[in-house]
Amino acid sequence: MRARLLEACVELLVERGYAGTTTTLVSERAGVSRGAQLHHFPTKADLVVAAVEHVMTERGIALDEAARSLGHPGTRAVLELLADHVTSSVFTAALELWVAARTDADLLAAVAPLEAKTGRETHRVTVELLGADESVPGVRELVQATLDLMRGLALATTLGDDDRRRERILDQWAATLDQTLGRTA
Amino acid sequence: MRARLLEACVELLVERGYAGTTTTLVSERAGVSRGAQLHHFPTKADLVVAAVEHVMTERGIALDEAARSLGHPGTRAVLELLADHVTSSVFTAALELWVAARTDADLLAAVAPLEAKTGRETHRVTVELLGADESVPGVRELVQATLDLMRGLALATTLGDDDRRRERILDQWAATLDQTLGRTA
Repeated sequence: MRARLLEACVELLVERGYAGTTTTLVSERAGVSRGAQLHHFPTKADLVVAAVEHVMTERGIALDEAARSLGHPGTRAVLELLADHVTSSVFTAALELWVAARTDADLLAAVAPLEAKTGRETHRVTVELLGADESVPGVRELVQATLDLMRGLALATTLGDDDRRRERILDQWAATLDQTLGRTA
Repeated sequence: MRARLLEACVELLVERGYAGTTTTLVSERAGVSRGAQLHHFPTKADLVVAAVEHVMTERGIALDEAARSLGHPGTRAVLELLADHVTSSVFTAALELWVAARTDADLLAAVAPLEAKTGRETHRVTVELLGADESVPGVRELVQATLDLMRGLALATTLGDDDRRRERILDQWAATLDQTLGRTA
């Protein structure tokens, strides 16, 4: 029942945005009574933060598994994996949450630790996938820049950016990373 | 009067977000009657799109002027200028508009051309500032990646990212760009 509520909530965040995601709509879509929903999640903030956390955790596990299945991928394949990761509906739901939290102090208090944790996890997986040596000066910053680039591309995608542009940018970024990190793809 | 309405609207987008920006609040803050406001802007969408366009145009002019005053800046100075450009309150207001437009077809129809125009302008100024030669394969994509990185950093900033992290990333990216574009800072 909890999982049904969380998944319905993420769907609604993607379809209708934060303002359009009411607790009534969530309970209807999940087929859960209002009483049961309020028992699990007393406020809308409790519900949406738990929903995004739930899906981010699942996506983190999926990213880890995809990483393992790739073995030692080339840089371009790593970037493709990361780009898919951030252009998923989870990113869209998280974006709604981030923007709403910007002007809602209670929501921000709940979202900030979640964001920090997710950021650390994604960074760790990226370092592993790229086989990057962060003891070399500048390497840590390049990995961070790569993740910030992904976030920028994901934002552009929600605004209707085209995939071919993204592909060309990732091609070039992979070449630049390989050159700078001294790897061959 | 029109300019007062537009500036009040941008302030409210930054302070309260899209959902919290009501046309009543805008007319109150601008000290303009409801009738006069409705004459200029019949709907909330008309008002917010015009407001963000107004400020983006002003910021575009400011970027152009800053670019001219720098003469031939080093890559790091260019990145600083761009980062300041996207972490301003205009970016925040635009972010609110983009996210609201994602789930509002009418708003999206108005925002998409504005976004495309702003993107082209910023790209043009960046190429000029970096002295980049886009006829060289990969250079156009590097400039695009630089702007997407800026957008990602700006998004992180609205979530409370710290300035020092941003500075280190920009340092490293400037070094990488110089190396890849074959320039010396």
